[in-house]
Parts: sequence; C-alpha cells; structure tokens
Amino acid sequence: MQIAILLYDNCTVLDAVGPYQTLGPLPDADTVFVAEQAGPVLDDNRSLSLVAAKSLSEVTRPDIVIVPGGPEPDVGNEAVLGWLRAVDATSTWTVSVCTGSLLLAAAGLLNGRRATSHWTTLERLREFGAEPSRQRVVFDGKYVTAAGVSAGIDMGLTLAGKIAGDEHAQAVQLMIEYDPQPPYDAGSPDKAPAALVELISGAPAPGQ
Amino acid sequence: MQIAILLYDNCTVLDAVGPYQTLGPLPDADTVFVAEQAGPVLDDNRSLSLVAAKSLSEVTRPDIVIVPGGPEPDVGNEAVLGWLRAVDATSTWTVSVCTGSLLLAAAGLLNGRRATSHWTTLERLREFGAEPSRQRVVFDGKYVTAAGVSAGIDMGLTLAGKIAGDEHAQAVQLMIEYDPQPPYDAGSPDKAPAALVELISGAPAPGQ
Repeated sequence: MQIAILLYDNCTVLDAVGPYQTLGPLPDADTVFVAEQAGPVLDDNRSLSLVAAKSLSEVTRPDIVIVPGGPEPDVGNEAVLGWLRAVDATSTWTVSVCTGSLLLAAAGLLNGRRATSHWTTLERLREFGAEPSRQRVVFDGKYVTAAGVSAGIDMGLTLAGKIAGDEHAQAVQLMIEYDPQPPYDAGSPDKAPAALVELISGAPAPGQ
Repeated sequence: MQIAILLYDNCTVLDAVGPYQTLGPLPDADTVFVAEQAGPVLDDNRSLSLVAAKSLSEVTRPDIVIVPGGPEPDVGNEAVLGWLRAVDATSTWTVSVCTGSLLLAAAGLLNGRRATSHWTTLERLREFGAEPSRQRVVFDGKYVTAAGVSAGIDMGLTLAGKIAGDEHAQAVQLMIEYDPQPPYDAGSPDKAPAALVELISGAPAPGQ
C-alpha cells in the first residue's frame, strides 16, 4: 500500500505530519512525500523544509492521497490539480487536512460532497461545489476531510481504524501517547473567546 | 528570541513539529532547526527528512532549546550532549518531548529534577538521576519535559502561555484548531486495553 503525502511551498507542517504519524504505521504501508519537484519544500512559518522524495510525475498510483493545507493554497495550480485528478482516479482514499480540501474541491473532486476545512475557510468550499460541514472529520465515500491543522491526527487515527481495525489504531494512539490535555479550551470558534475569533477571522464569532 | 529545535537521525517527526507549531508563533521568535551537520535528517519511520538549517556549532545561544525523542536516542553521543550542556548554560527554557528527556538527563541537566518521557521509557530517567513523573507536561524550574510524541503540542501551548500570555496561546490553539476528538480513548497506558500495553511495553499494564 502506497501513501502519498503532497507537499507544496507554504504548506503547514503539522497538516502533513499528523496523518503521517498516524497512517504511516499501517501494515505494509510505504509513505512517500511528493511535490511538483523533488527536494526541500519550505513551510508556512518559513523555518522548516520537508524533503519531497519524489516529483508528482513519479507517483502515479498511490492507494491513499493526502493533501495538507496552508494559509493560501494555490487553487489555480493546474500541475497540482491535474495530478490530484489523475491519482484520485485509482486511489482507495483521497484525503485532506485543513485548507487542503480547497485543493481537492478546486480539482473538482468534492462536487456535491460534504467536506470540512480550516474554520476560517470552510465557507469557501461552496465556491467549488462542495457542501461545508463543521464536523472535525468528514467521510463522504472515499473522500475524507479534516478540519484545521491538528484535526489531521484525529482523522488519521479514524481512517487507520477503518483500514486496519480498532486494535491497530489504538496501538498507534498509545505509541504516540495521544491523550490530549490542552491547557485551554480555545480550539474551535465555538469555544474560543469571541474577541479572538473576530480578530483571526475578521468576522463575528459564530453563535456568540 | 531564538528557538532551536534539535534534529538527529531516527528522531520522531511529531515530537519536533508539535512544539514548532505551537511555539514558533511566539512574538519575535526565530526558529532554527539544528543537527550535528546541517542538511536533511531522516526520521524514525524512514520516509521523511526534515532539513536542519544549521549545524550545532552554528547555534550557540538559543533562548529556548527543544529536544525531540525517538525510539533509540543515542545517550552516548558526546557531540549532542556537549552541545546541550553548552546551550543550557544560557537558555531561558530547556525543553524535551518524549524520549528527548533521556538526552537532557544523559547530559546531566535533569539531575535531581522531576521529568517525564514516553511512557515506555519513563523509568529509565532514574539511570541519569532524574525523578520520573507521570504527568503529561512537567515543569521543574526552566526545564520542561513532555510525555510521548503528541504531548509536545500540549507542552508547547502551555509554555507559549507562560511566555506570551493566555490570549496569545489561545490564539495559537484556535489557529491550529486544536480541539482534540480522538476516536478512541487509548492514548495512555492507564486507558488503553491491557493487552496492547503489554504488547508494546513487554511488561504488565500499570494498575491493570
């Protein structure tokens, strides 16, 4: 089983690493990081490069395709969109984290489907014919989308359980000691202080 | 403020990325990834290289030093241990995630201090004079240690709050949408099925 994780300039590292750490241990899985060109790809904080082992043209039939997000994913990049359409034709699962769903949607893959995204960009899914859902992890057929950044960990464990069973996924959870204890309860726009939500989104907090 | 995150062959990516994603946004912070030699460093799943921008000798006075873990951190690597002692002499915070605490302890920095580690290696801290604690995030003076892998996210938010205030840390939590919803409750040896704990640790589950 091949897992392909897309990298691109200005993507968010944790979006890629959450699924990597949770889906990488699948039995017989081989994970490959892929980008337009093989080599180092700089992240959105501009301090860390992850190395793409392969270029898009070298990865043609992954079983699982994973698309991370970033602050400004280029929804007009035809090299990436074309690759997504091509690999989606034979993938078992097509997956995104955060604003990665905008790339899947821009490629036409989420037309009429329920999907999620980073909370600040959720409504933009409509521009590409997808139906926004505020769930943290959304399954619609073989399409799996996760909410912002850290949601890729919950998505990865959920998908690992579907593919390899609950016991496997629980073992992964135990190995990464994923027993979250955030020091604040501000991880969603429903829970964070309204002033912060407004500051970050430029719009009033939902339901507040 | 300079944040230095150590990389080494066979380290666990999420151990480094959790703190990076949560502490990197600190006001006026500049994060540098550092390794014995600058260049790509391969992770413990052997599928992803992170690029160290600097060698150890190029990073001499970071304000925050962060040491990730891995399955077998080399507690006899004097190049790394010597660097840790040197930068600790002037650091404001000296930090580890997962088995990274074994490196801090082997460098002699946790002598007589409370610290945590990945649950499978917690007791090994005693070999180096540290006092194991089962908390997820442990503060002892300027030394901050986090439990396994994903605990680096909770640690990073907690430390971000101490450094830059609750509102800053809450904004970071909201940006990474850290509202965890694990599909299982198996993230610690107290909660996971006993058979899994025994399988992974080779020892009976605690309290089970």
